[in-house]
Amino acid sequence: MPPSLLPVITVFERSPDRGKGLARDMRVRWAFEEVGQPYEVRLVSFSAMKEPAHRALHPFGQIPTYEEGALALFESGAIVFHIAERHAGLLPADPNARARAITWMFAALNTIEPPILDLQTTRILERDKSWYEQRLPVVEDRIRERLAELSDRLGNADWLDGAFSAGDLMMVSVLLRLKASRLLDEYPNLFAYVARGEARPAYRRAFDAQLAIFTSQPSTGR
Amino acid sequence: MPPSLLPVITVFERSPDRGKGLARDMRVRWAFEEVGQPYEVRLVSFSAMKEPAHRALHPFGQIPTYEEGALALFESGAIVFHIAERHAGLLPADPNARARAITWMFAALNTIEPPILDLQTTRILERDKSWYEQRLPVVEDRIRERLAELSDRLGNADWLDGAFSAGDLMMVSVLLRLKASRLLDEYPNLFAYVARGEARPAYRRAFDAQLAIFTSQPSTGR
Repeated sequence: MPPSLLPVITVFERSPDRGKGLARDMRVRWAFEEVGQPYEVRLVSFSAMKEPAHRALHPFGQIPTYEEGALALFESGAIVFHIAERHAGLLPADPNARARAITWMFAALNTIEPPILDLQTTRILERDKSWYEQRLPVVEDRIRERLAELSDRLGNADWLDGAFSAGDLMMVSVLLRLKASRLLDEYPNLFAYVARGEARPAYRRAFDAQLAIFTSQPSTGR
Repeated sequence: MPPSLLPVITVFERSPDRGKGLARDMRVRWAFEEVGQPYEVRLVSFSAMKEPAHRALHPFGQIPTYEEGALALFESGAIVFHIAERHAGLLPADPNARARAITWMFAALNTIEPPILDLQTTRILERDKSWYEQRLPVVEDRIRERLAELSDRLGNADWLDGAFSAGDLMMVSVLLRLKASRLLDEYPNLFAYVARGEARPAYRRAFDAQLAIFTSQPSTGR
């Protein structure tokens, strides 16, 4: 088989969220769909992710990775930015607006996602600890503080800074991780913002593509 | 006073780490020094950071911010990237090497920094909680997992991908937050990597500039 001419990303062979679209490949799929760039997918098992061949692509043994010719990247933020830089549709042409869109990408990943990750880690890895019930509201309050600030900034706008950008793509993707927690419901404008992201045709196509991997696996049952 | 022709960043009026250089303005100062771009500094008090005038620049009420003409940015990652894009010295000219350097910036901020932030948050905000002593080693082990992976990838190299880049600047800055914890001592190549970063003349100039704000405040005593 000749090497693919399309960019190839890695995704979970088995979706840990049962196809809810919360794995980080979804951000990359969404970016590809927004700019109209076809891509290929390589499935990776949980055990293969931790083996040297995959770690050569991703030092932290995770997905997604991105390969195109001699270039190999990891980190969903870096991959989405790479796609956004090379195609029209995710970053404004005006230099100042472009720099602000990139700022929102970093804000999503470095200011909003860390407390949300802490909540997920707590739920998964500290559920059996004696402090679990007491600590959960502490973690949730840290998220609320960030959500309140983000809600104030967004106000009645559709997107964070003018037209939809890679900054919104990343922020919506990060906020989607809160869907199960109902924390988002406390901020109606953020709830509507996330729904606007999910309603985009590119998001729907990306979502359906990741779901298809899950629904095509016979052993997962019904 | 006419508006400054130089970029202006905001920094803490009172350094919460007593000038140890761990506040996020240090990353931006270091980037300016690496590329030889002079800059100006505006001091912000803890209370002013949370007021509307500052929140117009930084929705999350933090430092640093970056202002240059009509452009206002926040998030240290975005500001360092902005500087790196506009000046030679922090991103390779080769497009693939450039994309990999940007990948390391995102890895520093979204994979390595979150568990380190969790440790700092735990130390500050959960010290009086009943679970503090028990939970601390759990958080530290999460950091160890990431450090071991990063240590494996770095190996005997001086920097993460060829020449020093904005990716190293960000990674060293993030790892420096571990200095007080001694976790870094367990990974000699990472310890040496951070020391190499600190030894750069640009780092030293940036460090001295942030320290000068602290030492010039008479009320902090000796």
